[in-house]
Amino acid sequence: MIIVMQAGAAAREIEEVQAEIRRLGYTPHPIYGVERTVIGAIGDERGKTRLQALEAMAGVERVIPILKPYKLAGMELRREKSLIAVSAGVVFGGPKVPVIAGPCSVESAEQICAAARAVKAAGATLLRGGAYKPRTSPYSFQGWEEEGLKMLAAAREETGLPIVTEVMRESAVELVARYADILQIGARNMQNFDLLKAVGQLRKPVLLKRGLANTIHEWLMSAEYILAQGNMQVVLCERGIRTFETMTRHTLDLSAVSVLKRESHLPVVVDPSHAAGRWELVEDLALAAVAAGADGLMIEVHPRPQEAWSDGAQSLAPERFVRLMDGVRRVAAAVGREV
Amino acid sequence: MIIVMQAGAAAREIEEVQAEIRRLGYTPHPIYGVERTVIGAIGDERGKTRLQALEAMAGVERVIPILKPYKLAGMELRREKSLIAVSAGVVFGGPKVPVIAGPCSVESAEQICAAARAVKAAGATLLRGGAYKPRTSPYSFQGWEEEGLKMLAAAREETGLPIVTEVMRESAVELVARYADILQIGARNMQNFDLLKAVGQLRKPVLLKRGLANTIHEWLMSAEYILAQGNMQVVLCERGIRTFETMTRHTLDLSAVSVLKRESHLPVVVDPSHAAGRWELVEDLALAAVAAGADGLMIEVHPRPQEAWSDGAQSLAPERFVRLMDGVRRVAAAVGREV
Amino acid sequence: MIIVMQAGAAAREIEEVQAEIRRLGYTPHPIYGVERTVIGAIGDERGKTRLQALEAMAGVERVIPILKPYKLAGMELRREKSLIAVSAGVVFGGPKVPVIAGPCSVESAEQICAAARAVKAAGATLLRGGAYKPRTSPYSFQGWEEEGLKMLAAAREETGLPIVTEVMRESAVELVARYADILQIGARNMQNFDLLKAVGQLRKPVLLKRGLANTIHEWLMSAEYILAQGNMQVVLCERGIRTFETMTRHTLDLSAVSVLKRESHLPVVVDPSHAAGRWELVEDLALAAVAAGADGLMIEVHPRPQEAWSDGAQSLAPERFVRLMDGVRRVAAAVGREV
Amino acid sequence: MIIVMQAGAAAREIEEVQAEIRRLGYTPHPIYGVERTVIGAIGDERGKTRLQALEAMAGVERVIPILKPYKLAGMELRREKSLIAVSAGVVFGGPKVPVIAGPCSVESAEQICAAARAVKAAGATLLRGGAYKPRTSPYSFQGWEEEGLKMLAAAREETGLPIVTEVMRESAVELVARYADILQIGARNMQNFDLLKAVGQLRKPVLLKRGLANTIHEWLMSAEYILAQGNMQVVLCERGIRTFETMTRHTLDLSAVSVLKRESHLPVVVDPSHAAGRWELVEDLALAAVAAGADGLMIEVHPRPQEAWSDGAQSLAPERFVRLMDGVRRVAAAVGREV
Repeated sequence: MIIVMQAGAAAREIEEVQAEIRRLGYTPHPIYGVERTVIGAIGDERGKTRLQALEAMAGVERVIPILKPYKLAGMELRREKSLIAVSAGVVFGGPKVPVIAGPCSVESAEQICAAARAVKAAGATLLRGGAYKPRTSPYSFQGWEEEGLKMLAAAREETGLPIVTEVMRESAVELVARYADILQIGARNMQNFDLLKAVGQLRKPVLLKRGLANTIHEWLMSAEYILAQGNMQVVLCERGIRTFETMTRHTLDLSAVSVLKRESHLPVVVDPSHAAGRWELVEDLALAAVAAGADGLMIEVHPRPQEAWSDGAQSLAPERFVRLMDGVRRVAAAVGREV
Repeated sequence: MIIVMQAGAAAREIEEVQAEIRRLGYTPHPIYGVERTVIGAIGDERGKTRLQALEAMAGVERVIPILKPYKLAGMELRREKSLIAVSAGVVFGGPKVPVIAGPCSVESAEQICAAARAVKAAGATLLRGGAYKPRTSPYSFQGWEEEGLKMLAAAREETGLPIVTEVMRESAVELVARYADILQIGARNMQNFDLLKAVGQLRKPVLLKRGLANTIHEWLMSAEYILAQGNMQVVLCERGIRTFETMTRHTLDLSAVSVLKRESHLPVVVDPSHAAGRWELVEDLALAAVAAGADGLMIEVHPRPQEAWSDGAQSLAPERFVRLMDGVRRVAAAVGREV
Repeated sequence: MIIVMQAGAAAREIEEVQAEIRRLGYTPHPIYGVERTVIGAIGDERGKTRLQALEAMAGVERVIPILKPYKLAGMELRREKSLIAVSAGVVFGGPKVPVIAGPCSVESAEQICAAARAVKAAGATLLRGGAYKPRTSPYSFQGWEEEGLKMLAAAREETGLPIVTEVMRESAVELVARYADILQIGARNMQNFDLLKAVGQLRKPVLLKRGLANTIHEWLMSAEYILAQGNMQVVLCERGIRTFETMTRHTLDLSAVSVLKRESHLPVVVDPSHAAGRWELVEDLALAAVAAGADGLMIEVHPRPQEAWSDGAQSLAPERFVRLMDGVRRVAAAVGREV
Repeated sequence: MIIVMQAGAAAREIEEVQAEIRRLGYTPHPIYGVERTVIGAIGDERGKTRLQALEAMAGVERVIPILKPYKLAGMELRREKSLIAVSAGVVFGGPKVPVIAGPCSVESAEQICAAARAVKAAGATLLRGGAYKPRTSPYSFQGWEEEGLKMLAAAREETGLPIVTEVMRESAVELVARYADILQIGARNMQNFDLLKAVGQLRKPVLLKRGLANTIHEWLMSAEYILAQGNMQVVLCERGIRTFETMTRHTLDLSAVSVLKRESHLPVVVDPSHAAGRWELVEDLALAAVAAGADGLMIEVHPRPQEAWSDGAQSLAPERFVRLMDGVRRVAAAVGREV
């Protein structure tokens, strides 16, 4: 930590801050400038948010953390990329770029099987579909729950595609884990810490979506919650952040992909469908994501988008998804990856 | 809904959109302009997010919802303010402005009792304190859980102040409800819909904090989740939203207080401590909140802020809280309220 | 500056950074932690953005500025509030809270005089009205320019109210200064540095609006541009920042008022009309601004809002402005001010 | 426009709104729903912001514009992409993707010539460099002005690269236009409407950067200001928007590239250097921009970044720019473009 004293802080105040730093188990290193004194507090900062409380002391202007707050998610303990294997040949973090595709919601056995066949034919490697749906309105379709999981399992049976599906509450983790190949934690639950601890108890891959208004730091701290429970199979998923722009549903933050390559060994998948909120933009953004170095894609595809029970406006019809996959293959090759 | 067709949409496309509108149970009302055709879809929009999927149809530019998506939280079914009574004399939504005060975390029996005595002496009407703590880092103090609830109960016993405390997971709702007078849903859980349904089953007041990046619309929809389960005792709490400004932790949105007076009958409390993140700003913002028409305040007060286990930088020392209460009383009187 | 080295930075890299710090005229103070080395660079940071370029050196993680970049706008050289006098009895920064009111645009001699009479009758102390209008669309009314200034002068003649009006370009500064009592720099021009330098040459008060997406730091730096030219009569004006919320036009940031009291001696006026974008919210926010400690208000009032050429939706009709002034008087008294 | 009446608006209020619509020259088309009445106002909306003032009338809930406010910048009058030719072989909007590269500021004749030679060798097609610098601080280097323009001209002389340089004020437009091949309007001046009108008088290409907090709509309206003056040679430049994320300087919005392909015929260039603020991220984002369909790139390159007078942290050293160009060539080929 760096503790910046106010201009004109009294000698006694500087003394008291140093005493408090020692009391908390750190060694103070004061630097006396002409205008201001700055005190370095040396020691392990992680988990020590108490140092931040020094801001309540007289004469202190602000307290600046220096160390990264994440240990297991960061690069200091592990420098090479983590490989998260879902099944034979489906691995996140390696040279291949797996593509997760499918509808927002599982609506019926027919719909999810049709979607699975279509996305498989186009080259997708995993199937997505929601059985538990976090909906803004209590009056919207909330998902078929276990029935939906069974429909997903049937689609996997038929096509061989591993399945990614969301879990929204601790009490459903065990059940969802019985069916899913990857459990998804949705954007709205990125800081549902009890749910994070629960999936941390599993030994199955978890896809952790970034919250709408969460910084990359906070996102890695949420990954840390899962890792700290012993589940090292975490895949991050960027899906757009909230900004003032209204022509897209959210703003896809592809810089996050590039930042995360430098900050973490965890693979990063990009979901351009939720970010854009409009199907016309999905292909461009998918190509951009791969060019930026994404380790995977997640794309909403529905057999008949205009009849979708949710997210129809951002879902691709199967023929458009075929086109997207063609582009993705070419761009992946250009950056030394393959799909 | 208003469906805006693209400039130059074909007559056949306009026809197909109207057919689809009819198929979904609505009556289409086309308006043919010189440049563009616009179609009104008359019928109850709520819960009908499927109309939005028309954006996937050829020739459609965008779909604009017209009706408010909330029914129970809105003013159409109930125009007078809801009065949420916590105990004799402590009512949110009436002429009195209850003040909730206390530390971020319950740290020890001594600390919470000292805090309770101090805030009561200054005129607070409810005690806050966290027994379950949603912390960004898994290595930070996570709360004393049931032990903390017991300490809160002891502080209530001693001072008579009703208690407000957070519940973070469905499985703890019953336990927390046994101790708390008001259950708080934190900002990070504003869209934890299973938790909302669970507190909706109670018949106890719920304080619903606004999510960091949630619109007022989404916030009211989350209240709707609780109300739709039959629990009509919802108090909203504005606590700052995420913006680009870094001199405050979040940006307190007092416009929300004014908007909500017009959109909802639910009382609105303001928490300037979490919004500001710096104790020096709390008094000014508390006064502003009351002037804007807030129905209550929530203020972090700690017996010794610089030793707080969490949120020390934004907690008031007791003597500063006394000063704040003096100001609040004067401003409340100026706007026809009392504390 | 604090230069944070990467974990594992080589000794040679640490050496080179120190050499570069010395080359730029600073003294390096390294602090060697277990995981990371941090180097303090002691010396005057202001104007030395070149230190930031050290981020391009091998082994450097980031460079954190410590000193405030503003000198004249900050509290270090001047601790007591600046008093900006516009005319006898109209002073910003003292115990009185001047209220600027009037229409968005000067539309006609009749309209501006009617507005001036109405706001004066209600107790306003200055008249606003735009003769040069920054409009998003080139097809919108762009203002009557010098003709409009003459209409404003006539309204001043009749009512005695000093006038506040916007200047948008350097080449018009001299002309506008001939008519205006305070020159307004609009939000969109907050970082039009040539315009800032031009009004810095004047010896007349300048009202500097905060840019839509500008931090408080950047705002004070823009004030510094004016002050550095020798014009010490700067009044700041908060008018809402851009966020994701769509029920208001912008989000009024009243925390800025409280922050600025601690960061600067310059008075701060609040404009709730542009922030809210809806007349119904203006009164609540005006009261809140005064409670938070604002040194003035700026309110849009139009004789017939529904016929306004611009900003009709956010303008108050005269009778509503009367009501607002009553509330403002009471709240001002409650916080020891008067109107 | 669509005028949405409040639930329960009186018949008389609905009548008065229709009368006002007629008075403004539009035809009202009411649609009577069960809960609410909605009125379509048919006619040309552009430039008619006065309809928005209907929000001030009793019974009106909100007014929703339907038509695009831009005419010349939009796709309705011109559907094929505009080709903006700078010199023989350097055209924005065609199959080739021009790359603009060079330092933030022109520091000396040697520096700009060294930069020009380096970027040319790597394959850049235009040279950038600032002679007028908009700096947050009045104490930072403000540019060499005409001297700087001469240094740029000398670098062009030597390398043959056309030059892009910023103009900050109307009074310098003529001078800058004498030297520059493309005049840049910086982000901070995107809504400096007088400056836009001035460059609209030229018959030279203008590079219009997006403002930090400006929507795509506002950006196109600023382009409209230039086009409406008769200068049809406008190139847009996305350079990041302001969000809450702090690990990057701004958030690059690549969705804007994809949106603009559908909304406008104007070419779009992407500047990842200013968006990221960190040189390590620039290559990934440049590749992503080309994959998303950008019509050009703008990259900061400095002969010795750690000695740069401005923006050193985000500037590439020449050898890294060579590597970036290699990647850009491969990705461009993958999407059917060339560099």
